[in-house]
Amino acid sequence: MATEEPVVYVGNKPIMSYVLACLTLFHEGASEVCIKARGKFISKAVDVVRMVTENFMWKVRIKDIKIGSEFLTDKKGSMHMVSTISIILTKEGG
Amino acid sequence: MATEEPVVYVGNKPIMSYVLACLTLFHEGASEVCIKARGKFISKAVDVVRMVTENFMWKVRIKDIKIGSEFLTDKKGSMHMVSTISIILTKEGG
Repeated sequence: MATEEPVVYVGNKPIMSYVLACLTLFHEGASEVCIKARGKFISKAVDVVRMVTENFMWKVRIKDIKIGSEFLTDKKGSMHMVSTISIILTKEGG
Repeated sequence: MATEEPVVYVGNKPIMSYVLACLTLFHEGASEVCIKARGKFISKAVDVVRMVTENFMWKVRIKDIKIGSEFLTDKKGSMHMVSTISIILTKEGG
């Protein structure tokens, strides 16, 4: 799948940082924005999506949600499997 | 949507408790199982789904993922909005 939409990676920053990143991308003309997170940040990514769609931009809808997994190498060099989520938001009419 | 599938609510217990709950339901004949979680447990719900589909039951696929929100009342009586996730797993040929 050739996805060209901008990606917001959710991590350690406060939720509003990511909400604002999404709002900025939509206001700059993006018709779709992808929100990605891994491991414990998945819950925060869902919070971001909820805030964007329910509190800030009524015309933005969830187009697709995918979950998967990735291998991560920690500081000691050992591999860990982590869950990932990828949520595509789309702006109606534009 | 009339959903009759059994529901596994993901919370404080270890991940394997929920994985085993899903496996048991499928082995007992369920063709679909719904996994639900709220707030910080959303990440764990995704881990459960990943383990069931990737590590234990190759014939089980994700049919649908929905995110939403609910109001919760805390001990002090104040209302909080929390994110929710609901993932439906389906057994192929089952």
